[in-house]
Amino acid sequence: MALTTEQRIRRAAIKLFADKGFHGTGIRDLAQAAKISSASLYHYMGTKEDLLADVMRECLARLLRAARGLTGEDPRDRLAGLVALHVLTHATQPAETRVVDHEVHVLSPTVRRRIVSLRDEYELLWTETISDGIRAGVFQDAEPVVTRLALLDMCNGVTRWYSPRGPLSLEQLATHYARLALRMLGGPENDFSFPVQRAREVVSTVWKRTL
Amino acid sequence: MALTTEQRIRRAAIKLFADKGFHGTGIRDLAQAAKISSASLYHYMGTKEDLLADVMRECLARLLRAARGLTGEDPRDRLAGLVALHVLTHATQPAETRVVDHEVHVLSPTVRRRIVSLRDEYELLWTETISDGIRAGVFQDAEPVVTRLALLDMCNGVTRWYSPRGPLSLEQLATHYARLALRMLGGPENDFSFPVQRAREVVSTVWKRTL
Repeated sequence: MALTTEQRIRRAAIKLFADKGFHGTGIRDLAQAAKISSASLYHYMGTKEDLLADVMRECLARLLRAARGLTGEDPRDRLAGLVALHVLTHATQPAETRVVDHEVHVLSPTVRRRIVSLRDEYELLWTETISDGIRAGVFQDAEPVVTRLALLDMCNGVTRWYSPRGPLSLEQLATHYARLALRMLGGPENDFSFPVQRAREVVSTVWKRTL
Repeated sequence: MALTTEQRIRRAAIKLFADKGFHGTGIRDLAQAAKISSASLYHYMGTKEDLLADVMRECLARLLRAARGLTGEDPRDRLAGLVALHVLTHATQPAETRVVDHEVHVLSPTVRRRIVSLRDEYELLWTETISDGIRAGVFQDAEPVVTRLALLDMCNGVTRWYSPRGPLSLEQLATHYARLALRMLGGPENDFSFPVQRAREVVSTVWKRTL
């Protein structure tokens, strides 16, 4: 199925923002990559910032939708699920996630507030899972706020280096990260029963792509 | 003591490359920030890429110098030391480290090879420490290569959010990260006796700045 003009512009924007940054991407680059004239580009999009905000909003909404689907009482399983979803999203959608993780600071205050509040909503799921685990005595951590940041940074990093040609499959990668995360949160010999294969299906569904 | 023109250009470059990326930084921005004319900028620097490579080389050389100073037989102490040095460098030199961590891909192949080989030299110290720990039975990890990447990404992330006005002091931050790292590497109840205060002194020395 051929892409619509809007979809072509969006794809071009994701790739360019990820490769060259928001400031490094000119309107002319966008038009050229989307194969339309600069003049008609304005018919299809608002400002360059609108386009950036749209890309971020959609990526965060998908992460949030995937993460909200995690149920289960055991905080270890929920944490393993969050880590698996986050790692798989970053491994398979490197351009989108790089834009979300690196370009928030270029947004103007009002737009930034909206994007950051979506990100906060997502990160709250991590915070609650860690708190629940500490309360239940399965996690032991003196600095849960900093540890949440460390976990997210660790998982974000996958975007930079993951390659499908590497030695680990997506499931092995997600499983290893889930184990690392549980180890970081200490506690008695932690393990999880979250099925990582399910995380792959969820990510595949919210991104409408076969992984 | 007044800065020399070269130092002013270098500082301007670090700030601009960190904020706007290499591609987003124009020669005119550099000249303006360094308070000289675009024409005379060319007297003081080679290409924009030379300037970027210089900034990266110096930052990596300092990390390497600091890390090479770590002695001690116990791989747990060495790992704690590497983590503390890396975290403190990223917390206190956010612009330089952001440039090193995010702009390598813009370098041309020959220059990139030189910078990457310096980075490889530094990362080899991490690899060897992890291998030594596994060999000595104090670390247990099935995927040491991926775990090294996870550790570095986790520590790099500090650049993005650390603030001296936050609740943790530099030593507390470095100590918490060293603990997280040792937990990630499993093994029996890991702890370390590396004096984190020393990491602070080393970083202060190699960067010639009081932290």
